[in-house]
Amino acid sequence: MDRAIDALLERWRSFVDDALARHLQSTGDRDGVRPPARLLDAMAHSLLAPGKRVRPLVVLAAAHAVLKDEELALERAQPAALALELVHTYSLIHDDLPALDDDELRRGRPTVHVAFDEATAILAGDALLTDAFALLAAAGASAVRELALAAGSAGMVGGQLDDLAAEGSSPGVEQLARIHAKKTGRLFEAATVLGGLCAGANGDTLAQLRTLGRHLGLAFQIADDLLDVTAGAAADKGTGRDARHDKATWVKVLGAEGARARAHLEADAALALARAQDAGALAALCRRAVARTH
Amino acid sequence: MDRAIDALLERWRSFVDDALARHLQSTGDRDGVRPPARLLDAMAHSLLAPGKRVRPLVVLAAAHAVLKDEELALERAQPAALALELVHTYSLIHDDLPALDDDELRRGRPTVHVAFDEATAILAGDALLTDAFALLAAAGASAVRELALAAGSAGMVGGQLDDLAAEGSSPGVEQLARIHAKKTGRLFEAATVLGGLCAGANGDTLAQLRTLGRHLGLAFQIADDLLDVTAGAAADKGTGRDARHDKATWVKVLGAEGARARAHLEADAALALARAQDAGALAALCRRAVARTH
Repeated sequence: MDRAIDALLERWRSFVDDALARHLQSTGDRDGVRPPARLLDAMAHSLLAPGKRVRPLVVLAAAHAVLKDEELALERAQPAALALELVHTYSLIHDDLPALDDDELRRGRPTVHVAFDEATAILAGDALLTDAFALLAAAGASAVRELALAAGSAGMVGGQLDDLAAEGSSPGVEQLARIHAKKTGRLFEAATVLGGLCAGANGDTLAQLRTLGRHLGLAFQIADDLLDVTAGAAADKGTGRDARHDKATWVKVLGAEGARARAHLEADAALALARAQDAGALAALCRRAVARTH
Repeated sequence: MDRAIDALLERWRSFVDDALARHLQSTGDRDGVRPPARLLDAMAHSLLAPGKRVRPLVVLAAAHAVLKDEELALERAQPAALALELVHTYSLIHDDLPALDDDELRRGRPTVHVAFDEATAILAGDALLTDAFALLAAAGASAVRELALAAGSAGMVGGQLDDLAAEGSSPGVEQLARIHAKKTGRLFEAATVLGGLCAGANGDTLAQLRTLGRHLGLAFQIADDLLDVTAGAAADKGTGRDARHDKATWVKVLGAEGARARAHLEADAALALARAQDAGALAALCRRAVARTH
């Protein structure tokens, strides 16, 4: 069973990779006007770098949880899955800019402002964010509103500003949870809800998917904080990216053991909801979120 | 007649100003989560600075051209009108950044990265762009797709990159028309089309509104290039913003007389279409676009 689900998720990951490449190859206006080559190159540099594609997989898994049909789920949820990855990628490009986190490496490659220049990085981020909504329009106005609220001033962007403001400070658990709910959690929540919307879900099913996404996002963020510490240590630098920026993290606030426990609590809450919907792929993604924190 | 239309447009401008202020006061997530105060302040700094609100007025005038009913036009087209101004404002904030045009003044105020800081300016732009789509969802998926295509990689953002790349060069008239069609024209085209969509227009009417918007956008851009030269001269600096950046402009390519003639040709083409639809407010906006270039 687990191996069948692993194969399924790997198939979906390839599907997302291929669809992202095709999307960039066909991006254009209604009159066939193509984006400038340099802009496309910068977008591709970041978007097509090898990645786990967690957020698009969550979209597809949520659609599959409702439809219980792989082909139909991929077909209906593809635009939303791609849109989520475009928005996630834009947020990384802008986060890495000198004025924000000033990072030079991302996914093993030079960041966009290093490989190209700062102006191109700003515009490539802007383009990915905007193009995401052109894609997502195919999923309908409710899906657009869901993603825009999740990613906008009261969601992800607001969380990024809070996160910058919290550097060097020691927030409490509740404040940290609020920052991360906006910075990471809302996009996971949008991922499960968008998958559900594309599959025609509503009412209780959609509400459960939302709650599942919220727990999954938090589990994922805490695990990410833990891995950042480990990765920093493994790279023999003593610290990872978060410590270098003195970010407010779960490890800083709860300690490694406390953070690990909280991550598993959140993942278990998400897992219970996935099981209640007999959603094998979603359940596997919930387990994976904390798999490397044992 | 002209005075009645002037009064109408002034009423609509106030309506847009009030609606923008109300929008910022009520921006939030579905759970009532508000954006961080500093982010809202930065968004307001730019969005609520006194402006002509040309793009929202074009949206409202296009809706009015179809509906011929002021109250109904304002009600139906309001979300699209506000969304256009949010997208326009985001583009100004990002354009003014040190990595792009590095401008310190805008609409008579310090630019956002000067009044706040660069990180806040980047995030405020991101927030305005994203929030625009949350607003626009109320106008339906076709409207979302229209604006996203106009503002995205093959539209405005692509035009901004082309414009930066053309600094210091001498493009021909056709290349300049292509750059400005993307950088400015597509957003005017989206403005007329969105107004039409909100009013329930389709087919030929929508196609005519699109063509009108294209001509109007070009007229507006050329007039803007002309005014930039005049403003620069008036400010006793000899040059305006464009010349300071050695931008490719219509004045540079066609000379002041040639640019003026071209602006009037474009405005006349737009005006003829407005008159064919008996659209008084749209016609007035076409005349205004070139009024100060005589």
